[in-house]
Amino acid sequence: MRKMEKQQLTALLSEMTIEEKIDQLLQLAAAFYSDKAEEKTGPMSDLGLTQENINNAGTTLGVSGAKEAIRVQKDYIKNNRLQIPTILMADIIHGFRTIFPIPLALGSSWDLKAAEQMAEVSAKEAAVSGLHVTFSPMVDLVRDPRWGRVMESTGEDAYLNGKFAEAFVKGYQGDDLTNDVNRVAACVKHFAAYGAAIGGRDYNTVNMSERQLRESYLPGYKAALDAGAKLVMTSFNTVDGIPATANRWLFRDVLRKEFGFEGVVISDWGAIIEIIAHGAAQDEKHAAELAIKAGVDIEMMTTCYTDHLQELIEEGTVDEALLDEAVLRILNLKNDLGLFENPYRGADEAAEAAVVLSEDHRMIAKDIAKKSMVLLKNEGILPFKKQETVAIVGPGAQSRDLLGAWSWQGKQEEVINLVEGAKGIGAEVIYGTEAFDYFAPSEAAIAEAVALVQKADKVVLALGEQEWMSGEAASRSDIRLPEAQRTLFDTLKEHNPNIVVTLFNGRPLDLQAVDQAQAILEAWFPGTEGGSALAELLWGEDSPSGRLSMSFPETVGQVPIYYNVDNTGRPYEKAPDEKYVSKYLDVSNYAKYPFGFGLSYSPITYTNLTIDTTQIDAQQTAHVSVTIQNDGHHSVTETVQLYVRDVVGEVVRPVKELKDFQQVTVAAGETKEVTFAINESQLRYVHSNQQLASDTGQFKIMVGPNSRDLQETTLQLV
Amino acid sequence: MRKMEKQQLTALLSEMTIEEKIDQLLQLAAAFYSDKAEEKTGPMSDLGLTQENINNAGTTLGVSGAKEAIRVQKDYIKNNRLQIPTILMADIIHGFRTIFPIPLALGSSWDLKAAEQMAEVSAKEAAVSGLHVTFSPMVDLVRDPRWGRVMESTGEDAYLNGKFAEAFVKGYQGDDLTNDVNRVAACVKHFAAYGAAIGGRDYNTVNMSERQLRESYLPGYKAALDAGAKLVMTSFNTVDGIPATANRWLFRDVLRKEFGFEGVVISDWGAIIEIIAHGAAQDEKHAAELAIKAGVDIEMMTTCYTDHLQELIEEGTVDEALLDEAVLRILNLKNDLGLFENPYRGADEAAEAAVVLSEDHRMIAKDIAKKSMVLLKNEGILPFKKQETVAIVGPGAQSRDLLGAWSWQGKQEEVINLVEGAKGIGAEVIYGTEAFDYFAPSEAAIAEAVALVQKADKVVLALGEQEWMSGEAASRSDIRLPEAQRTLFDTLKEHNPNIVVTLFNGRPLDLQAVDQAQAILEAWFPGTEGGSALAELLWGEDSPSGRLSMSFPETVGQVPIYYNVDNTGRPYEKAPDEKYVSKYLDVSNYAKYPFGFGLSYSPITYTNLTIDTTQIDAQQTAHVSVTIQNDGHHSVTETVQLYVRDVVGEVVRPVKELKDFQQVTVAAGETKEVTFAINESQLRYVHSNQQLASDTGQFKIMVGPNSRDLQETTLQLV
Repeated sequence: MRKMEKQQLTALLSEMTIEEKIDQLLQLAAAFYSDKAEEKTGPMSDLGLTQENINNAGTTLGVSGAKEAIRVQKDYIKNNRLQIPTILMADIIHGFRTIFPIPLALGSSWDLKAAEQMAEVSAKEAAVSGLHVTFSPMVDLVRDPRWGRVMESTGEDAYLNGKFAEAFVKGYQGDDLTNDVNRVAACVKHFAAYGAAIGGRDYNTVNMSERQLRESYLPGYKAALDAGAKLVMTSFNTVDGIPATANRWLFRDVLRKEFGFEGVVISDWGAIIEIIAHGAAQDEKHAAELAIKAGVDIEMMTTCYTDHLQELIEEGTVDEALLDEAVLRILNLKNDLGLFENPYRGADEAAEAAVVLSEDHRMIAKDIAKKSMVLLKNEGILPFKKQETVAIVGPGAQSRDLLGAWSWQGKQEEVINLVEGAKGIGAEVIYGTEAFDYFAPSEAAIAEAVALVQKADKVVLALGEQEWMSGEAASRSDIRLPEAQRTLFDTLKEHNPNIVVTLFNGRPLDLQAVDQAQAILEAWFPGTEGGSALAELLWGEDSPSGRLSMSFPETVGQVPIYYNVDNTGRPYEKAPDEKYVSKYLDVSNYAKYPFGFGLSYSPITYTNLTIDTTQIDAQQTAHVSVTIQNDGHHSVTETVQLYVRDVVGEVVRPVKELKDFQQVTVAAGETKEVTFAINESQLRYVHSNQQLASDTGQFKIMVGPNSRDLQETTLQLV
Repeated sequence: MRKMEKQQLTALLSEMTIEEKIDQLLQLAAAFYSDKAEEKTGPMSDLGLTQENINNAGTTLGVSGAKEAIRVQKDYIKNNRLQIPTILMADIIHGFRTIFPIPLALGSSWDLKAAEQMAEVSAKEAAVSGLHVTFSPMVDLVRDPRWGRVMESTGEDAYLNGKFAEAFVKGYQGDDLTNDVNRVAACVKHFAAYGAAIGGRDYNTVNMSERQLRESYLPGYKAALDAGAKLVMTSFNTVDGIPATANRWLFRDVLRKEFGFEGVVISDWGAIIEIIAHGAAQDEKHAAELAIKAGVDIEMMTTCYTDHLQELIEEGTVDEALLDEAVLRILNLKNDLGLFENPYRGADEAAEAAVVLSEDHRMIAKDIAKKSMVLLKNEGILPFKKQETVAIVGPGAQSRDLLGAWSWQGKQEEVINLVEGAKGIGAEVIYGTEAFDYFAPSEAAIAEAVALVQKADKVVLALGEQEWMSGEAASRSDIRLPEAQRTLFDTLKEHNPNIVVTLFNGRPLDLQAVDQAQAILEAWFPGTEGGSALAELLWGEDSPSGRLSMSFPETVGQVPIYYNVDNTGRPYEKAPDEKYVSKYLDVSNYAKYPFGFGLSYSPITYTNLTIDTTQIDAQQTAHVSVTIQNDGHHSVTETVQLYVRDVVGEVVRPVKELKDFQQVTVAAGETKEVTFAINESQLRYVHSNQQLASDTGQFKIMVGPNSRDLQETTLQLV
């Protein structure tokens, strides 16, 4: 596939009328291009659009299926005076039709190749179905499990989020987006700091200093941009009081000038018109002015630009150059996608039939689901033996509600549930016939569960959340399991104490209610192959290897809780029993299950932490090594984690910060040495002047299996 | 009393050796000046001090009692080469020996005269006992009830906190501090934003933008400074990553240059040495350098200055001018207190005997306690009639733990408890003999309570927190009543449903457990006369008039919750039942009991909201009026509240902001008109350029009895 030259795009731009240019900025939903008149009449009049607007609207949201995509594109080009193709965009977040674990689960895999593979498979299924752009990755850093969209984030750490951002973008876009029609363009979101909504309440105000924004929140987006993400989506929140979608500093100064981003900026759904609701614009015209001046190119699903940009330009409020640059960026994206030469790109009904939800894709999804599950507790009960009779009970036992939010094309009927997964590997399982509600199970269902656990050697109690309990607009003030599930655990434990609790859910939970389980396996929303993946771990076909990428609090009263807290002047860590230290009276400062934590079926011991030099200068590299030994009987994949603490900073530093990690497979009885290189660039942070720099002086270098259990040495930067 | 001229102070400074000057910056506890050698030997050697250091340490912490104060000052001057007197300072927060309600309760009085009177009485008792300075007012804005020191704040609103700050400073300092020896100098604290500790965990990191700091947090301190507060205390937290005590921008640029503060800056206890623990200083010498450069004059209880300032000056790291200006500010404070002429100032054993805990002071304390209590719920059960038999049960029934934290000189044995208060007004009460624990009441105590409520017409169930559960280093992750109290309510309700719950506590609580009470009366930690004040309200000698100055959440999962939230792009208020608005799935966005809320014994109706103009310019004043009518049988004091919303701002504005209020006493059946003046200066806010300014355009003007139940009109600023 060839691309147009820049001059050709400029020439094309110069042929466009001002109305056509403004329409390029408009994104409309697929319904507007339906071949059924009744599907578009309503929305058209709601938005006050003309057929001309629709013919020229630059991009389209939510078309799916190769046949439909080809038809829409064909009609579109036919109706477009200059034969400019549309771009078909959609939210492909954790798989297209083959649904993978939710991003928070992917984050817990700590497996960047897995993330890349997920994105590659998603891109392929989406591309053959006719899509060109996915609104992914979401790389918002989150420290509050109440927020519903935590399920869509890879977690609480800026470094890890950045690594995943890079992997996702690589997987979606590949190395040659223009020619590799099995790829889609990635749109990193939500710029910026959407994950810091106050109180974990979706769409709520965000407040932080510029320094914290730069240090903790921006690196994830920056990593996606450095990996080549073609689009950026604005966030719904304010950034220091200015709605992101109207925030000139954020988009013009930081994103464009400082980060050098030349791609397309798209508003989130309705985010331009919402500047009015925010109380930062008087009306749609004012909202349009603020957004175009901030540098927002595409308006999603509202018509502030369509209705007002021409007047704003004609009266001189907005320079037409702002419109031209926005249009050129959109044309450029179309060109990068090769759409001028091949407007149908990957859309291919035959490929679609072969590729979408293929057995290969299912197997990849199962493999990645296994990698993302986190064994939180195990008192020796796991893995099960095939000859044991295991009762699988609870609302998750036979639930197909394992996809999680943002799985648009996923179908619950295609999900392998846990009982099916267990039967699939030949496990000796018993299970019920009564439907088991997540919130109000019937007496019959509970009685059946009691009877089952009495007959079983061991029990899997499958608990958790339903899909609607996380995702957009799905914040919870109470992060415990639903009451009926807490009670159920107590009831069943009286009849059989050998209970393994498995969890399907979309956020870190308060798990006090099941603290007495003999094992707890966090399976998240694991996707289409969730039940088979979970069964294979429970019965030991593989050892769990997931490590939490977000802390699980003891209680919501500790929130926000995260591992890389700033040091205080009265540190708890040094004297937790003293009164005048930074703590609560009634709970520790620590997470119940900390960032980086997860068990395997073999214990791994860490010994012999060594560093090859006591000091480095800005040009030198230190090497820190540790020996890990598998003391058990299962081969396991261990995630060896490197943390650093800057002992004295110009700005107060976190007590520890993840700087690197390695995943190493260690066979039963095997010993391996793992070495990390450390240089000055890893020791930088954002100073009070907003600049990234390192301080000379002492650093603590910590290595271990999670953010809590670390061995420590020191290094001097000179 | 005369004061020295400025030249005399400069001359005195020039006579001082560098060692003497450095010692002026040292504050030592009273033990160092004890006449019992054994009391000072330990601390002396702990801090590595010489007798010379002690002789010259500029200020003293915690001496009390006129006799002892006079002795300490006499000895001090005798031992001081230049006969410079010391200043005696202490934490007098809500009363000296006569203990008043905690500041959060005072905030709920909305009675600025009461706050001023509290401070005046406190000053008088402290002054005759020999003290010169109080570390009050604490004006930290707090939005998180988990924080223990919330009890020491007047609440969540910048405007109200500022008004109280002013009233406290006036009350402590009077109009002529030098000559009015019954007054003490006020030290406003904690500069800055200590109340915003993340997670409500004391001493924890604070993070916010400069704009939010200026808009919400700084106004309280500024109001205290404008009222003439002589000292400012540094806070323990970081301000954008730099410990406040080392924060040059905060103290030099904002406090000194911008606010024009010329008084003394004192570190909080140990806050200079804690710069090391924060990881912002390498050692004590470095901490001393950072603090003196930031402009911290007095070092409380550590010796970084004492041990290192001379070396820092001699090696040229610190300019001696910084030392000189700090010393001059301390000498100036001594001069403002008239100590050069009268080093004993108000200390007077005879006055002390007459004044401290006088009957007059007790009566004032009772009156103010009544004004601070908030009736949260009343289904007609209150007030009690004298002929009814009322059982007073629960842990608070006969507890003298009513003083609350920060009541150093207060004595529990001087407290009037609730049963005594009720008996004092001749109420027909029955009560138990068994001790009633707050957490684990004995079976006998519970059985006795059950028997009592069975015999009674009505019940007062006195619940709450103990003193140690709020205050410094007393954060709670769980803000419910202790479990035993929740159970107790359920138990007693089965035997007598006519239950009035009264609460002694130091923070907003989750009161779900007592939601079914027929009345709930929030009495806070009400002080020495707490029981009599509460009884007088319960039996209707006065109507409750308190209004919450801080929101009570439904649950800790809503925290932080405050009334003046920024507007979002998807406002809950307009469509609480829609999915895609900013909300939780499981609880509303609203507080259980909102800011400004409180009931009286008579219903008050608000009608006829009018405004005398639809627009004003920057020179004009609008007047908004409302008619309030007392529809009941009790005379009540109503707090009429004025809120404003700036409909469109350069920066997103809160949904409402308190701008004014008036307390009006309305007799039974009476009608009154209340009028507020509104001008441009009240419509200003901090813009993105950090400057205070107003925007022209529309404003909503709201008037009502609390932040929730408001009537609305509009005003245009042109």
